[in-house]
Amino acid sequence: MSEKVRIALDAMGGDNGAAVVIAGADLSLSRHPDTSFIVFGDEAVVRPLLESRPALAAASRLVHTEVTVKMDEKPSQALRHGRWRSSMWLAIDAVKKGEADVTVSAGNTGALMAMSKFHLRTMPGVSRPAIACLWPTLRGESIVLDVGASIGADVQHLVQLAVMGSAMASVVFDLERPTVGLLNVGVEEVKGLEEIREASQVLRTLACSHMDFRGFVEGDDIGRGTVDVVVTEGFTGNIALKTAEGTAKQLAAYLRSAMGRTWMAKIGYLFARQAFKTLKDKMDPRKVNGGVFLGLNGVVIKSHGGTDAEGFAAAVDLGYDMARYELMAKIRRTLGQAAPAPVAGEVAS
Amino acid sequence: MSEKVRIALDAMGGDNGAAVVIAGADLSLSRHPDTSFIVFGDEAVVRPLLESRPALAAASRLVHTEVTVKMDEKPSQALRHGRWRSSMWLAIDAVKKGEADVTVSAGNTGALMAMSKFHLRTMPGVSRPAIACLWPTLRGESIVLDVGASIGADVQHLVQLAVMGSAMASVVFDLERPTVGLLNVGVEEVKGLEEIREASQVLRTLACSHMDFRGFVEGDDIGRGTVDVVVTEGFTGNIALKTAEGTAKQLAAYLRSAMGRTWMAKIGYLFARQAFKTLKDKMDPRKVNGGVFLGLNGVVIKSHGGTDAEGFAAAVDLGYDMARYELMAKIRRTLGQAAPAPVAGEVAS
Repeated sequence: MSEKVRIALDAMGGDNGAAVVIAGADLSLSRHPDTSFIVFGDEAVVRPLLESRPALAAASRLVHTEVTVKMDEKPSQALRHGRWRSSMWLAIDAVKKGEADVTVSAGNTGALMAMSKFHLRTMPGVSRPAIACLWPTLRGESIVLDVGASIGADVQHLVQLAVMGSAMASVVFDLERPTVGLLNVGVEEVKGLEEIREASQVLRTLACSHMDFRGFVEGDDIGRGTVDVVVTEGFTGNIALKTAEGTAKQLAAYLRSAMGRTWMAKIGYLFARQAFKTLKDKMDPRKVNGGVFLGLNGVVIKSHGGTDAEGFAAAVDLGYDMARYELMAKIRRTLGQAAPAPVAGEVAS
Repeated sequence: MSEKVRIALDAMGGDNGAAVVIAGADLSLSRHPDTSFIVFGDEAVVRPLLESRPALAAASRLVHTEVTVKMDEKPSQALRHGRWRSSMWLAIDAVKKGEADVTVSAGNTGALMAMSKFHLRTMPGVSRPAIACLWPTLRGESIVLDVGASIGADVQHLVQLAVMGSAMASVVFDLERPTVGLLNVGVEEVKGLEEIREASQVLRTLACSHMDFRGFVEGDDIGRGTVDVVVTEGFTGNIALKTAEGTAKQLAAYLRSAMGRTWMAKIGYLFARQAFKTLKDKMDPRKVNGGVFLGLNGVVIKSHGGTDAEGFAAAVDLGYDMARYELMAKIRRTLGQAAPAPVAGEVAS
């Protein structure tokens, strides 16, 4: 990696487009001055935004393209129409060519994953990419993966998810040996969990110095922060993530309604305003914005499409950390340790 | 059904045993005086508890057994040791024999499901039983199933879940045509969801007057209350349920911590105390206590093992509703409408 962290930005992605991307990048730059940007987008739109922010303009190179992947385009459509020339593709291409260390986009998730897979390809030893997210917990934060890159997972893929997730945890949380749990249900003797049980056995036998495997965890262990990394296949992970988001919104609505119902409650609210602000900050989804695409030959960060500058800045910060603390090298190192280990069947024979 | 609702109670189930069961039944009886109970348990323990509650004692018949299924017994162990003679088995047996309309137990979930399946068997037209739960939402409550009876589901089972869930919704929410959604992830063109897509097509073609199928819903639609019934297979359903419980606990802990941090917040808390009480009631898991085993020849209600009298009473209330408003007949009626409909493959040919 060069001395500066080089970030490729898809300036045209997201519901709010270039204004949010440029403002967010500016905010992140103020926190990490050792960043440079390559900004891909429509010059007529992006140039004026950049020029109003001299520090960012000085740290950026703008590459013009008129082609934008739409938020509602299907991945296959986006590939047909946006390959080689869209801002999204070109941002990924910058990582592929080694001109950037990481790509950040708030664009269409399906299209971003399809293009990233197509162009960057999966890394040796990884069968399928995954999306990892940061999940706020009672202990701080955990990483949950996969939250929707692919559906279903065999033993090998679950083991790869554990390896990639623990490498990411070592980067984000600065841990030598992150704890890892496999998401499961508590009922014993239920059929159909063979791959999860077998993955657990494989992970137990891995004498891996970069990962501390703790066995099964259940749904309520995620918010409790029982482990640093929660491993599950993409369908369940996506449902869990959205269910938690839904529950958080629901409880916030209950709280607002309870605090507005009587004069006593309203007075109480005024006194406790600072406490409510603390709580709101704690629950702020913008602070943990950014899904990380893992398992490709390059790091791609997906920001929420509907976020604001603060949220996009968090995604850029995450990209900065991934590059600065060498996520790719750490995944390769842990994969290298994990790969030669015997699988469960061989141990038994 | 007889004029009274006849409820069979496993008095020995749950972390807190007979004291909670008897107090809960008494509470439920005060709300539904047209209930009679058959209470299965150790006479030396249960008789004194019953005698201290004359109204309940008058409405109850006590059947003595010394055999109790332990909370940590494996289902297979429980079947071996508790069949024919444990309080759990005898409570299920009362429904099998037609002496009771519904069974309520706070015992070991796996054992209760294994015994219920073994003794009651699945009803004609249903391949596997399911556990349905009530889920508090912004609109009120929804039913989510399956939350853990079995892992994985083919098209036929997903359709059966929709049928059983909508029958339960018509009973619990008093609706002619409950809305039903299939839980899915939002990403298009992801492989591995064939059975969910196909189930959706089958449900669309069912001209069923007792169910209003609304297509796919996502994880955050559950808390939003988008549909009355959310259908998913048991692994994902269990993870979603526990994840939501974990998130609710997490946010409650954040709130407590924020309100105790400063004197201003503490004063605010005092003013808003009533509002916080309302919120706490709203989030009270005891009020929606009770998983309903669906798809068997008889209704079995599973109460949380760790609940108190108020929570157990909610499970008994749920059992009362299921019997009084004829859940079994409604499931049969909807199954009858759903069964002869052509499946997707036949429509295409």
